Amino acid sequence: MKEQFVIYIRELQNVICSALEEIDGASKFSEDVWKRPEGGGGKSRIIENGSVFEKGGVNISEVHGLLPKSIQEYLEVENSDFFACGLSLVLHPKNPFVPTVHANWRYFELYDEDGAITDQWFGGGQDLTPYYLFEEDVRHFHSICKQQCDKFSVDFYPTFKKQCDTYFYNSHRNEARGVGGLFFDYLKPNDVMSMKELLNFITSNGDSFLHSYLPIVEKRKDTFFDKNHRTWQEIRRGRYVEFNLIHDKGTLFGLKTNGRIESILMSLPPAVQWKYNHTPGKGSEEEKILNILQHPKDWI
Amino acid sequence: MKEQFVIYIRELQNVICSALEEIDGASKFSEDVWKRPEGGGGKSRIIENGSVFEKGGVNISEVHGLLPKSIQEYLEVENSDFFACGLSLVLHPKNPFVPTVHANWRYFELYDEDGAITDQWFGGGQDLTPYYLFEEDVRHFHSICKQQCDKFSVDFYPTFKKQCDTYFYNSHRNEARGVGGLFFDYLKPNDVMSMKELLNFITSNGDSFLHSYLPIVEKRKDTFFDKNHRTWQEIRRGRYVEFNLIHDKGTLFGLKTNGRIESILMSLPPAVQWKYNHTPGKGSEEEKILNILQHPKDWI
Repeated sequence: MKEQFVIYIRELQNVICSALEEIDGASKFSEDVWKRPEGGGGKSRIIENGSVFEKGGVNISEVHGLLPKSIQEYLEVENSDFFACGLSLVLHPKNPFVPTVHANWRYFELYDEDGAITDQWFGGGQDLTPYYLFEEDVRHFHSICKQQCDKFSVDFYPTFKKQCDTYFYNSHRNEARGVGGLFFDYLKPNDVMSMKELLNFITSNGDSFLHSYLPIVEKRKDTFFDKNHRTWQEIRRGRYVEFNLIHDKGTLFGLKTNGRIESILMSLPPAVQWKYNHTPGKGSEEEKILNILQHPKDWI
Repeated sequence: MKEQFVIYIRELQNVICSALEEIDGASKFSEDVWKRPEGGGGKSRIIENGSVFEKGGVNISEVHGLLPKSIQEYLEVENSDFFACGLSLVLHPKNPFVPTVHANWRYFELYDEDGAITDQWFGGGQDLTPYYLFEEDVRHFHSICKQQCDKFSVDFYPTFKKQCDTYFYNSHRNEARGVGGLFFDYLKPNDVMSMKELLNFITSNGDSFLHSYLPIVEKRKDTFFDKNHRTWQEIRRGRYVEFNLIHDKGTLFGLKTNGRIESILMSLPPAVQWKYNHTPGKGSEEEKILNILQHPKDWI
């Protein structure tokens, strides 16, 4: 299982980076290979100052060794060896009409003293953070999410959509980070689905990413924008920072377990503003997206 | 005690805001008065887009009621009524050669069922975050801190200086947030100092703030700077955000106890950048300040 998934995410990184470079047209990903002193390592690919993508990262990592103390506590397990691998991506487009996107697909194994697997699961998902609301874009993104979920179980989309709305939530502001998508964790084999079928589900999910996001980029990347649109985008990016640094378990885990800082924090936007008590004008486009974030809804 | 300290911070807010408006010359503080549903409230004063101060807040609050659950756990006390008041300030200057500054002076009381005080203490301090290193500025700031500490106890400055270096530390980056100053908490009466003397100490500390900071502002505010200096300032401001959202207990407390979001997050800088793996050039001025932050030192 772990070999299959590792091969998959390595290939997916290539596929996604190539497609993003093609649509960007101006900038290329630069690669940063790193080793983890305690075992394993990763390959970060970063794009900056593109014509479409102001900043983005498409990172893979495969790490193993003794499970760090803080993760032991979190997972409620004793001393144990582990293996974890995954692909994480965040893209911050320059144009405020193109949404920011995040996706992650990961696999985890725990072992007993003899090296036999005691537990294994998949996690991941993908979610969209627009600065301006185009309902057709959000419906497109969710419909791709739903289509690929429905191939495996009709329960998946409603369950994972709801988990996404719950997870990517700035509780200190009573608003969602974005318009959601899918979020799942601890996907383990059961009576209905084998590990092999779960692998098919998560790779199908990974394969669907470009179909869910690229058409939106294509449609919005050349939309005219002015300084006011840009200011709004940078203020909203501040909320993205707040979520990632205050609430996101993955980020905090990484930071507290001596992870690779630059790879973890590649998710932070390139240029951000905080204004005191900024409130969009009544009836404005800015107020429209804020209303949606304060009242997450069903898109399909 | 609480009446005396409340009167003091109200007056100190006026004194500090007047002095800052005078040196800014262009912008005035705007006032935002708020009430806390569970008891008490505050008065936030915010300055934005000044000629010297790009963004800053000088806030006071006086809150009381039943101690929130999360603070009970933190302080390891049972159900209890509390009173807390304090002044908090953060100033983000426009010119990268003028350091950011933070200061806070606070007082806390806990009560038993009959309303008698069961515990009381002061906390606070002031610390400097420069983007470029002028050793004479840092020495000036620390010498004012030391002078006013020495009037009360020769142990105060070395103890509180060290606590400041320890507290304002971005452990995930192995670097200090700034060049320190003073940090103290749970200052309670003992054989050597009465509550009255502690009040004298903390008000003396508050009174010294303008003397420690304004001469530096005066000296650096008109220094020529270009786009590169500004970029460096905005990247370093990113570290300020990281500290405040990941590590700062005051911020996280506020966010988790349903505090007033805009007043808590007034500390976040107005414009911030995150670049992937940004590293200053060998022998540059940017590298010089980074070296100091990675190896906090004694200034007096």
